[in-house]
Amino acid sequence: MNRNALEDQIFEKKSMLCVGIDPIQELMPARYQNYSTDSLIGFSKTIIETVAPFAVAIKPNIAYFEAFGSSGWDALPRIAEIIKDHNLLSIADAKRGDIGNSSKQYAKAFFETMDFDAITLSPLMGYDSIAPFLNYKDKWSILLTMTSNPGSKDFLEQELVQGQSLGHHILTSSQQWPNAEQLMYVVGATKPDELKALRKKAPEAIFLVPGVGAQGGSVSEVIQSAGTSRGGLLINSTRSIIYSDLDADFQTSVQLSAEKMQKECALNITLTN
Amino acid sequence: MNRNALEDQIFEKKSMLCVGIDPIQELMPARYQNYSTDSLIGFSKTIIETVAPFAVAIKPNIAYFEAFGSSGWDALPRIAEIIKDHNLLSIADAKRGDIGNSSKQYAKAFFETMDFDAITLSPLMGYDSIAPFLNYKDKWSILLTMTSNPGSKDFLEQELVQGQSLGHHILTSSQQWPNAEQLMYVVGATKPDELKALRKKAPEAIFLVPGVGAQGGSVSEVIQSAGTSRGGLLINSTRSIIYSDLDADFQTSVQLSAEKMQKECALNITLTN
Repeated sequence: MNRNALEDQIFEKKSMLCVGIDPIQELMPARYQNYSTDSLIGFSKTIIETVAPFAVAIKPNIAYFEAFGSSGWDALPRIAEIIKDHNLLSIADAKRGDIGNSSKQYAKAFFETMDFDAITLSPLMGYDSIAPFLNYKDKWSILLTMTSNPGSKDFLEQELVQGQSLGHHILTSSQQWPNAEQLMYVVGATKPDELKALRKKAPEAIFLVPGVGAQGGSVSEVIQSAGTSRGGLLINSTRSIIYSDLDADFQTSVQLSAEKMQKECALNITLTN
Repeated sequence: MNRNALEDQIFEKKSMLCVGIDPIQELMPARYQNYSTDSLIGFSKTIIETVAPFAVAIKPNIAYFEAFGSSGWDALPRIAEIIKDHNLLSIADAKRGDIGNSSKQYAKAFFETMDFDAITLSPLMGYDSIAPFLNYKDKWSILLTMTSNPGSKDFLEQELVQGQSLGHHILTSSQQWPNAEQLMYVVGATKPDELKALRKKAPEAIFLVPGVGAQGGSVSEVIQSAGTSRGGLLINSTRSIIYSDLDADFQTSVQLSAEKMQKECALNITLTN
């Protein structure tokens, strides 16, 4: 899905909502708890179909699928197809990144063997570890930039001699890379000052913002900090949507919480055509 | 495999050799080129059996298996078993790393669903992204520290205000983490000065050193730069061993090149009991 198609979705739905899929056995409805490929597909399909009117992107967390072994891996290509069938951006949350030859294989896995639109990446090894992903036209590479977890202070928040933190340097230097228009950036929702500062440094870039809802960030604050006239954001929520009410009917609770978050988006976004 | 068992292997075989497994279709013997799980297992098994007298560790590169989709994933648990059957350290070269909850799932995938001894990790997100792996006793977490690829200058070689490069800071700060004795570090073979400097900062740590052979590093230089009286190194070679002579019999060429590299190790190591 290219940038125009994604922005069309944001405009039509008045939403920047990205819904994460973390299949957690003890939280999933009982009918899906049997580890099978069909259950993982069924669980994901219900979420995708239910949130499609309210969301613009779906982000399966590959870690949770990998933990199931090959039954998880068998489910992923089908889930990518279902996301595409609903005209949503499919993001493989995989945090991959290796030397060029190996990254080329990861890119092949997620962009050819499977047909995801986007993948999250760890840019620690530098440009040549990301380039193989950027060689795919109309595919997105989403770089870890400034996260909200406690360990972000260990390395991403470290100040460099050249005058900015490592996280900021990842953003500003990668904006100079070939095909930089295919980059997005992961920026945590609980750091509005970082969101504002990074937005100044990359006025046009799309930020994927996790940490809204269960993790404490607010949709209005995120949009006020880094929203743009074209949207400029994918605001991710996972547990606050797919596990919002474990006592209620699964599909109903998913729908209500996705709709609520879309409304929070619509209230705060100012889009100009 | 714990540290004593690994060091016993190093002493007995007079070898620090780690053999990488990158199943590259156009380079593999024709009989394995059909993408199937059985072929990937057969290819890996031949390598493992052949190099076992000369090597102490085997490192499947997960990227190459992932590119095959679920047939690759079906092969990996069996390959981990075969490595264990030969009393070699099994390293999943996966470069994983995510927030705690997600890393916990990756750790489950590689240490429970599969039974690898060690995994390579990207520490960019800091301590809590690595901790779930360190919670497994007798399992190893191998952190990207200073690599030899062109992009290492982009971030890992950047100088921090606090007085050392990011790569060095990864090493020195992680040595203070709980269970730091279960950490190893990836340090490129083509940077002997870095190897020496990092060895001074972590006299007891084990370094996994890729880049020997096809990529230009030499075994003798690596051992002279960072060898210790207990070994202290796993020196990885992949293409120079498994694809050393495409015109010769596969098993013979693998054996000859592994034996040659073991002899280079034996000539240069000085181990004390």
